[in-house]
Amino acid sequence: MLRSTSLIRKFTSPLRRAGTSVRSYQYKAPVKEMLFCSEEVHGFQEHYKTLNNLAGEDASPEMTPAGFKEAYDQYVDGGWQGLSYPEKYGGSNLPMSLALMKSEMMATANWTWSMFPGLSKGAINTIMLHGEDYLRDVYLPPMVAGNWTGTMCLTEPQCGSDLAQVATMAITEDEGKSYSISGTKIFISAGDHDFGDSAGSADGQVIHCVLARTPGAPEGTKGISLFLVPKYLVNEDGSLGELNNVGVDRIEDKMGCHGSPTCQMNFENSKGWLLGTKNQGMNHMFTFINTSRLGCAIQGSTAAELSHQGAVWYAKDRLAMRALSGKRNPGHEPDKAADPIIVHPDVRKNLLTQKAIAEGGRSMIYECAKIADKLADNEMLAAEGDEVAKKAAEEADDDMGFLTPILKGFLTEKGVDAAHLGVQVYGGHGYIKQNKMEQISRDVRIGAIWEGTTGIQGLDLLGRKIFLQKLKPLNKHCSKVRSFCWDTIMSAPTSKVRNHAIKVALLTLEWQFLTARIGLMAKDDREAIGSASVDYLMFAGYTHMAYHWLQMEVAAEKGLAAGTGDKEFYEAKVQTSNFFFESMLPQTKTLAKTMLSPTDAVMKMSVNQFETA
Amino acid sequence: MLRSTSLIRKFTSPLRRAGTSVRSYQYKAPVKEMLFCSEEVHGFQEHYKTLNNLAGEDASPEMTPAGFKEAYDQYVDGGWQGLSYPEKYGGSNLPMSLALMKSEMMATANWTWSMFPGLSKGAINTIMLHGEDYLRDVYLPPMVAGNWTGTMCLTEPQCGSDLAQVATMAITEDEGKSYSISGTKIFISAGDHDFGDSAGSADGQVIHCVLARTPGAPEGTKGISLFLVPKYLVNEDGSLGELNNVGVDRIEDKMGCHGSPTCQMNFENSKGWLLGTKNQGMNHMFTFINTSRLGCAIQGSTAAELSHQGAVWYAKDRLAMRALSGKRNPGHEPDKAADPIIVHPDVRKNLLTQKAIAEGGRSMIYECAKIADKLADNEMLAAEGDEVAKKAAEEADDDMGFLTPILKGFLTEKGVDAAHLGVQVYGGHGYIKQNKMEQISRDVRIGAIWEGTTGIQGLDLLGRKIFLQKLKPLNKHCSKVRSFCWDTIMSAPTSKVRNHAIKVALLTLEWQFLTARIGLMAKDDREAIGSASVDYLMFAGYTHMAYHWLQMEVAAEKGLAAGTGDKEFYEAKVQTSNFFFESMLPQTKTLAKTMLSPTDAVMKMSVNQFETA
Repeated sequence: MLRSTSLIRKFTSPLRRAGTSVRSYQYKAPVKEMLFCSEEVHGFQEHYKTLNNLAGEDASPEMTPAGFKEAYDQYVDGGWQGLSYPEKYGGSNLPMSLALMKSEMMATANWTWSMFPGLSKGAINTIMLHGEDYLRDVYLPPMVAGNWTGTMCLTEPQCGSDLAQVATMAITEDEGKSYSISGTKIFISAGDHDFGDSAGSADGQVIHCVLARTPGAPEGTKGISLFLVPKYLVNEDGSLGELNNVGVDRIEDKMGCHGSPTCQMNFENSKGWLLGTKNQGMNHMFTFINTSRLGCAIQGSTAAELSHQGAVWYAKDRLAMRALSGKRNPGHEPDKAADPIIVHPDVRKNLLTQKAIAEGGRSMIYECAKIADKLADNEMLAAEGDEVAKKAAEEADDDMGFLTPILKGFLTEKGVDAAHLGVQVYGGHGYIKQNKMEQISRDVRIGAIWEGTTGIQGLDLLGRKIFLQKLKPLNKHCSKVRSFCWDTIMSAPTSKVRNHAIKVALLTLEWQFLTARIGLMAKDDREAIGSASVDYLMFAGYTHMAYHWLQMEVAAEKGLAAGTGDKEFYEAKVQTSNFFFESMLPQTKTLAKTMLSPTDAVMKMSVNQFETA
Repeated sequence: MLRSTSLIRKFTSPLRRAGTSVRSYQYKAPVKEMLFCSEEVHGFQEHYKTLNNLAGEDASPEMTPAGFKEAYDQYVDGGWQGLSYPEKYGGSNLPMSLALMKSEMMATANWTWSMFPGLSKGAINTIMLHGEDYLRDVYLPPMVAGNWTGTMCLTEPQCGSDLAQVATMAITEDEGKSYSISGTKIFISAGDHDFGDSAGSADGQVIHCVLARTPGAPEGTKGISLFLVPKYLVNEDGSLGELNNVGVDRIEDKMGCHGSPTCQMNFENSKGWLLGTKNQGMNHMFTFINTSRLGCAIQGSTAAELSHQGAVWYAKDRLAMRALSGKRNPGHEPDKAADPIIVHPDVRKNLLTQKAIAEGGRSMIYECAKIADKLADNEMLAAEGDEVAKKAAEEADDDMGFLTPILKGFLTEKGVDAAHLGVQVYGGHGYIKQNKMEQISRDVRIGAIWEGTTGIQGLDLLGRKIFLQKLKPLNKHCSKVRSFCWDTIMSAPTSKVRNHAIKVALLTLEWQFLTARIGLMAKDDREAIGSASVDYLMFAGYTHMAYHWLQMEVAAEKGLAAGTGDKEFYEAKVQTSNFFFESMLPQTKTLAKTMLSPTDAVMKMSVNQFETA
């Protein structure tokens, strides 16, 4: 234990200094942008009025902007962990969507710092949903307060996505009340730390949610259970007792995310308690997995935002060559040695691509935040026996399940692309650590890997969420989008908006058509789904982002017509939307073709033929 | 000076250990692959017979495989620097294409190590072409022997691509025989080292080729001259004299390429000698720039090769889930806990994409190596007054100039993509430094930046190489490709080959058509070229790679028909080609659309509108 504590102490000290890092540009929370997206595009005020558990309490919708501003002013101070948790556990019972905006700003300012509270929330949600009352009452209050942190322990050396191979064992003790857990877990983010806590220990309490097998459990995923395993045992009065044999064997040296310790955890007869039902661990885990996949989507879009802010700063500052269009160029500066590089179309395309990803991604995420609010709201009523609410909760859960792999898969890959372009705008200076652009690139890279690689997301979407559910969620979604398009076409303020609405409507039809084509191919050849899945996922991502840019364009045109608000801001929205439709959305042309390419081209090669040397 | 020497010593010591790094997989030079590409696709043996300066000497074409093998066995020992240089300076006078195969293996095994000899060769070529005899006789023999290394000093803090802003000054001394050079140069790769040399200094002689201005020279690029500035002054007997006030101020901390020191060099009244003609420095520099841009292309394709070798190794080793197609899957292993991930179509697509980039890139590079041989061969005859050779040299130079931005821009970006996919195949383990996959990703990243970013390559191709030359190089190239396609269609061994040949021929027509469209747009709007250029470059890259995959497919079918050689190897070629045509080439569909998107979408936004926060 001594070893692991000193490992962690050594590791987290640079983290503490991370907040004071010197940057040539300084991240600014895009408040105007966030308000536009939450209010004018997604109508959060109206949405809050529909939430039962919120509307019935003190927290009136009017407090939103106040909480919003406070979060902006104080996000570094922390103490915001309980924002969207029940008052019963010390939370403020505000909607999840508000907590998400806070998380967005924290994630952009310092992704790795935000992983500690983020992963803790994953553990809190899991314990809240599946833990018995005696566990919730002991563990949740200090976790919701932020004094104790939490982790999720899934991966083992021999298995990541294929959790059927989990080998950690849990042996019954204490006549089934508690278990003795032994095994090795790897890639445990925020697995330990020395932040300290109010309960008096120097190095902080950590609550691990651990997947393990009980003796005699069925093979594969059907024999996995979920356990709560604390770093320190907890005394009856809530104070910390003895260490529970949970050791950090190693901290990984990674490509990026250096601010967050990725731990190999060793459990050796550590005491644990069952969460939920025995052998239902995989199902229980999906609560956490869905939340954390949306967290990855946030990672992608906030990396795009941060890299974009840096690249705009640099493109206005750095001088190189003259604009080809001379004086007519919107950034031409005749008095300087050369023009700032923001005059050059190629640089602008890089900046606009980043902007389209950051803002399109934000809108996609805010929509999911609304669904999450509805889900939580109705789940609470459903627990009291409300049948209508139960159905509404199921529907929200389905909607979320359908959108999650699209957001996770698409926004993380596009976040990597956006960070790449930010480095590109800086040229050689982007490759130098001091300028921080390459760090964004390294930090966001893990987004397309953890919580299921892009390949896994593609299979989740096309296999589990679409074909296993007989296309239902897809058809529902496409109908909803087309209905919005129809309204927009009927009332379109400009011909551009109308054309974009037509494009989106046609794309949803093509999406359904392509799904049917793959389905037909898969009848004869089961590999057709896997072979199509990543291209399919990306097609879905572009189409979904187009739907969101359409919504933003409509909201911006509304703002322009009203003549209130910031004209330049609205016009920038319209122009970015136009750029997305002209220069990015045509990627669907290629994807529509490649997802249908014959599986022979992929499967025919023997394993030996892959060796060329 | 003391400071800079100790800086370098500290820096290069880990580099020396780099050769012994532990990898889970070990790079193997793909000898079979290189022989196929050089002989069966590009007919190097026949090509060597056409080289006058080679055919007339002892070095018969038969020695190729021998030198090839030796290079493979001994590349780490060095001493290969003079392979393709004249005997007069101590070289072996072998074709440049042979030296390139040696470089390819060194670059794959250890990119940053290979930068020292690589940059030295840039300096050797520059001195050989532009230096007066009294400079060549002193500096070339020890450089060709590899005892002295060389660099190119272009970039300054305020300017990279826009060399018009170069501010380093060269003041005449010694009645014009020598100059006093003062200024700061940044991003100087291999700017210094402590390898030592045979001339007796502890920390090695370095010869810098430096861009600077003389007093009163015209502004902009027309007033830049090129100078030779040694680290140590050289005594009359060739031994090293005093230090020449060339200091290393800083070594950059970069995203990757940690094995190579990137130096900020400070020249303070350092003695230098003019290379070539005064104020013609930019022109003289293009010799070096073209070579180094092809070096970048090699960086991209070798990164794809290395990452592919690692990913194949891992995909055969790592077990996760079962193949959907069960027993019929070419990699299914029923006796193991799960199948190796190489059974899964998504993993295979990643591997095949890497393979198509590595092998397609190799073929593109070997073609350029042949052109470089012809260029060097004819330049030598032209120097003796041969008019036919002079014309042939000009033609080879034009061909090279046209292909260089395509190879540099396309292969570096695709190399980055390929390395990304390698990390993806490893999943979370790809993000861990120890597994070396993320290092390939970081090392290759600079390829798309240095020697001109992808944006600069796009402008070079479309602006300088195509429109400024009134489409001549493009039309010549497309005619040549179509002629090959026509022959292939007439004699096609399989319907697949025929279809691929038709596709390539049609793509060259589309390429010319798109060029004309952009030309028309640019008549009214000069930004049309810059706005189209990167998409255009990528279109050219895919089309050019398709031409090379077609050539490889034809050669492989020939090998299969002959019934000699490795059947599995040839079949893998045919299958990889098929994958390229089915799953990668359709990217041209999107690019053909986006390169023509209206410039309004890019240029309309004001500089202020880029600020959202």
